[in-house]
Amino acid sequence: MDITLQPLAFVTNNRKDITDDYWGRVISEIQLADHIPTAALEGIEAFSHLEIIFHFNQAEKKDMVFSGHPRGNPAWPVTGIFAMRKKDRPNALGLTVVELIKREGNKLWVRNLDAIDGTPVLDIKPVMKEFLPAGEIRQPDWSSELMQQYWK
Amino acid sequence: MDITLQPLAFVTNNRKDITDDYWGRVISEIQLADHIPTAALEGIEAFSHLEIIFHFNQAEKKDMVFSGHPRGNPAWPVTGIFAMRKKDRPNALGLTVVELIKREGNKLWVRNLDAIDGTPVLDIKPVMKEFLPAGEIRQPDWSSELMQQYWK
Repeated sequence: MDITLQPLAFVTNNRKDITDDYWGRVISEIQLADHIPTAALEGIEAFSHLEIIFHFNQAEKKDMVFSGHPRGNPAWPVTGIFAMRKKDRPNALGLTVVELIKREGNKLWVRNLDAIDGTPVLDIKPVMKEFLPAGEIRQPDWSSELMQQYWK
Repeated sequence: MDITLQPLAFVTNNRKDITDDYWGRVISEIQLADHIPTAALEGIEAFSHLEIIFHFNQAEKKDMVFSGHPRGNPAWPVTGIFAMRKKDRPNALGLTVVELIKREGNKLWVRNLDAIDGTPVLDIKPVMKEFLPAGEIRQPDWSSELMQQYWK
């Protein structure tokens, strides 16, 4: 049962290499694809944050494993792919909350998008408080350690 | 440039109809598809919340418009599809943060998944505090009004 999607927009930024950390200073431009009218962004400036679903189009299928040590670090427990956010995953979907800096016509400028230059965007959704996690968030220690340099 | 995805899991719950509101009491079971090994969920219980990307497979392409009044309500401003979270959207991707209740083998039970029975799941990611929105969240009044009955 195949599901076929089309890129709706593309990312432009100065991040050319696939590396794990240091995304904190990256500003990205997201421009709608030619077949999407500018009206699709109407009113988006009223939201401070957006969710971007994108395609890890440079991830290679051969690198995907269903479980393993996060980042190959044996100090961290063997973990399933659905308990990690790494790019080498079935369907190669990325997902990140970004801060919307500004919109001009069919372009958005955003902060905190951990996608490299040229990445195809598959959806853009507004962040609403009502969709944030309810209750206290619990996560394993390895994930907090892994994230220490991520947004620097 | 087509991107082809496969369902990785499927939703089972008692919500058979496509309606907008009253998702607060729905408990859903998410079972991995046959080609995904149970190891893909290893360690997921250490996370309290998950992000589920799913396919609005019953949304009809003919209902998709790039902008309009949210829920057809003329009291709310004309808004672009990327400033709304409705199901009738390009690529028909749904995305919701859920609370993980328990896992047994290749099944998860979750709360707050606004997807109907039979929905194909395209990705499961753990919620980490480091990926939540940074800074204050701003959203338009219409979106808060629209959400009033959503989780009841």
